Amino acid sequence: MSVLEQAAAARVAAIDLAAATRAEKDAALLLMADRLVERTDDIVAANAVDVAVARDSGISEAMIDRLALDPARIAAMADGLRQLAALPDPIGDVVRGSTLANGLELRQVRVPFGVVGMIYEGRPNVTADAAGICLKSGNSALLRGSRSAFSSNAAIVSVLRKAVADAGLPANSIQLLDATTRDSVKELMRARGLVDVLIPRGGADLIKTVVEQSTVPVIETGVGNCHVYVDADADLEKALAITINSKTHRNSVCNAAESLLVHAEIADSFLPLVLEELGSRGVTVHGDPRVAGYSDDVVAATEEDWGREYLSADIAVAVVDSLEDAMDHIRQWGTGHTEAIVSESVTATRRFVAGVDAAAVMVNASTRFTDGGEFGFGAEIGISTQKLHARGPMGLPELTSTKYVVTGNGHTR
Amino acid sequence: MSVLEQAAAARVAAIDLAAATRAEKDAALLLMADRLVERTDDIVAANAVDVAVARDSGISEAMIDRLALDPARIAAMADGLRQLAALPDPIGDVVRGSTLANGLELRQVRVPFGVVGMIYEGRPNVTADAAGICLKSGNSALLRGSRSAFSSNAAIVSVLRKAVADAGLPANSIQLLDATTRDSVKELMRARGLVDVLIPRGGADLIKTVVEQSTVPVIETGVGNCHVYVDADADLEKALAITINSKTHRNSVCNAAESLLVHAEIADSFLPLVLEELGSRGVTVHGDPRVAGYSDDVVAATEEDWGREYLSADIAVAVVDSLEDAMDHIRQWGTGHTEAIVSESVTATRRFVAGVDAAAVMVNASTRFTDGGEFGFGAEIGISTQKLHARGPMGLPELTSTKYVVTGNGHTR
Repeated sequence: MSVLEQAAAARVAAIDLAAATRAEKDAALLLMADRLVERTDDIVAANAVDVAVARDSGISEAMIDRLALDPARIAAMADGLRQLAALPDPIGDVVRGSTLANGLELRQVRVPFGVVGMIYEGRPNVTADAAGICLKSGNSALLRGSRSAFSSNAAIVSVLRKAVADAGLPANSIQLLDATTRDSVKELMRARGLVDVLIPRGGADLIKTVVEQSTVPVIETGVGNCHVYVDADADLEKALAITINSKTHRNSVCNAAESLLVHAEIADSFLPLVLEELGSRGVTVHGDPRVAGYSDDVVAATEEDWGREYLSADIAVAVVDSLEDAMDHIRQWGTGHTEAIVSESVTATRRFVAGVDAAAVMVNASTRFTDGGEFGFGAEIGISTQKLHARGPMGLPELTSTKYVVTGNGHTR
Repeated sequence: MSVLEQAAAARVAAIDLAAATRAEKDAALLLMADRLVERTDDIVAANAVDVAVARDSGISEAMIDRLALDPARIAAMADGLRQLAALPDPIGDVVRGSTLANGLELRQVRVPFGVVGMIYEGRPNVTADAAGICLKSGNSALLRGSRSAFSSNAAIVSVLRKAVADAGLPANSIQLLDATTRDSVKELMRARGLVDVLIPRGGADLIKTVVEQSTVPVIETGVGNCHVYVDADADLEKALAITINSKTHRNSVCNAAESLLVHAEIADSFLPLVLEELGSRGVTVHGDPRVAGYSDDVVAATEEDWGREYLSADIAVAVVDSLEDAMDHIRQWGTGHTEAIVSESVTATRRFVAGVDAAAVMVNASTRFTDGGEFGFGAEIGISTQKLHARGPMGLPELTSTKYVVTGNGHTR
C-alpha cells in the first residue's frame, strides 16, 4: 500500500477507535504487552538482522546499543504499555461546560485528533511507546521509524496489530510506513486531510525539514539549547550541583544544558569551582575570553558555540554583566526548550521567569527535569518546543483535540 | 519598513507587552476607544477615500456597505475595545499546578504567543477588534487587511498606535502591513521565528493559500459547509424552526447551514413543510431526485452542490436512509465547522455527537449558535476549523500559549 492508502485506512480505523471505550482500549494495551513478551524470540531475531546490517556498515557501538533489543528491553516495552493502560483516558473529559443564558447546554469535550503521524529515528522501543500512546488517546498511528530499525519495527508492529485486532479494535489503528525510502516521509507530509497531525522526533535537520515542507499540521519537538544562568545572588552550592547535573547527568538528551551564563559579580567565586568540576568529569568548556582567564583548559568559544546543541560532553560558558544581558543572550541563542536560573533573589527569579520565552523555566532546579515522567504525566510522546497546541512535555491530553457539544430544545437565534 | 523589519519590531514590542499588567493593558484599551471616537472625523474622511475607489471600480452596494464607516460604526468599534477591557486577562492564569513527589513546584502558566499575524478581508472594524484582542492577550499584532480598506485601516491604526504609546505601552504592539501588494502576505507567511502564529480570516481560497504556503504556524478559520440532519425521531416543529433559522437568519456567515439531510422515514411529513417555508423565504433548494419529488421548484443537485459553501439563499437537500448514511455524507462533504441533529432520540443524538467530527455539534439547536459571543466568550478572533491548538470559536485564551515554571531548592536528578 502507498502511504496515502495507509493514511486512508488509518482514517477509517480512527472512526471505530474514537468510539472505543476506555475498557476496550486498556484491554488492547494489556494484550499488546502480553504478546510482545510472548513473541520475544521473534522480535529479537528480527532485531538481529538490523544489528547485523548496522555492524557491517561500521556504525558506532553506542548506536548499535540504541538499536539492540534483548528480552529485558522487550519486557520494558511491555511494561510501558501496561502503565498506559493504568493512566486515565483523556477522551470524553469535559474541559469546559456551562449553561448559557438562553438555556443551551455548552460542553467542550476532549476528542481524539484522528490520525497521528510519527517520524522518528533510533531506538525501536519508540515504536511500541508511540503505538500505545496513540491507541490510548484514541488516535490511529502512522509510524515512520528509521531505516536502520525497519526489521525490528516490522516485527513489533506485526505483533501489536494482531493483538489490537484480537482485542476487537481495528488492526489499522497501528501501521508502519516504509522506512526504506524518503518518499514515505514526503507523502506523509502532504497527506493533509488524511493525517491530522505530524510529530517529528529526532535531530534538528529532520524537524526543520518537516516544519518547512509539511502541509499537515506539525508539532515540533525537541531541539534544546538549554542554558543555566547563575545569578549574582546564586547559592554557590546549588549553582554547582545544578550546572553539573544539567550538563553531565546525561548529555545526549534535549534537556541537557549546553550553555552556562555566569553573572560577572559571582564569576570569581563560581567559575573556578565549576570549571574544575566540569573538567574532572571530562567536559570540554568552550568559553569566552573572560572565562578563559580562569583556566588553561578552556577552549575559545566561537559565535557558533552559543547556538550549538552539542549533545556531548561540551558546554559553552560566558560571563554576563547583568540579568538583562543573560536574558538577551538566551533570546538570541535559545531554542525555547528549557532555561534555568540559579538565584536566591525573588526579584531576579521573577524577572527571569517572566522575561524568558521557553517551554519550561527552572528556578533553582536542573534543566533535566523537563520530562513527562518527571512532571508526573505517566507517558510522554515528546517535548514540544512550539507555542501552538502543546508546549513542553506532551502527555495523553496533548494528543487530543476538543469538540463543542451544544444541546438545546429547538433553540434558534 | 519591510514586513520582516515590522515583524522584528513587533517582536521587540512583544517583550514589553508580555510584561504589561492587566491594569496597563486595560488603560490602553480604554484610551484606544476614546481616541477612536475623538478622531471620528479623520477616520470617516479616510474611509471616504476607500469608498470612492470602491464605487469607481463598480463594486456591489452590499460590499460598499461592508466597507463604509460612519460615527455609529466607529462608536461600536470603541465599545468593542471597552468590552475587551472588562474581560479577564488570560495571561498569568495557572492552567495546571502541583507539587511533585520530590518537592518541585510545577506550574503551567498562560503566556502570550508573542507576535500574531492576521490576514483578513472586508470590513475595517476587524482592524480595531483584532488589535484590541491581541493587545489584551499580550500579543503584538501584525495586521494585513484588505487593499480595499487600506486608507481606513491606516487611519484607524494610526489612532490606535498613538493611544497605545500614550498609555505607556509600545506603539509597535500594533502595526499595519502594506495591503497594496501580495508580497506582504508572502513575507508574513515566511517570517518563521519572528511571527508565532498566523490567522487568516476570509474566503476559502485565502485560507487554502496560507495553509499550504506558510511556514509560520497557522490557525485555520472559518469555512463552513454546515449540515442540519433531521432524524426519523425529530420533532417536526423544532426541525422546521432550526432548519429555517440555520439557513436564513443570515446566509453570508460561516455558521449558516448549507445542507439539509432528511431521514427517509420522516421525509413525507417534513419535506413538504420545509420546502414550502424555504421557498417562501426565497431560498433555492438544490435537491437530490427524492427531494425533487416533493416540489417542482427543486433544482437538481449536482455532486458539486454537496460540497459548496453557498453563503447565499441556496441550500442542498438530500434524503438519507439512516443516521449512519447521514454521518457518512457529513464525513465526505463537511468542513468540520458545525453539524446539527434534530432528534428526540437519546440513542440517535448520542451516536451523532460521538460520530461526527466537527468543531461544534448542535443537538436540537441552530447551527448559528457557533459563535464566541453566543458561547459567552465576550470576544472572538475567528472560528477555528482545525484540530490543533484551538477548535471552534476562539476567545482570548485561544490567543495564548503556556510555559511551565518549575521551582526547586537546588533540585537535581
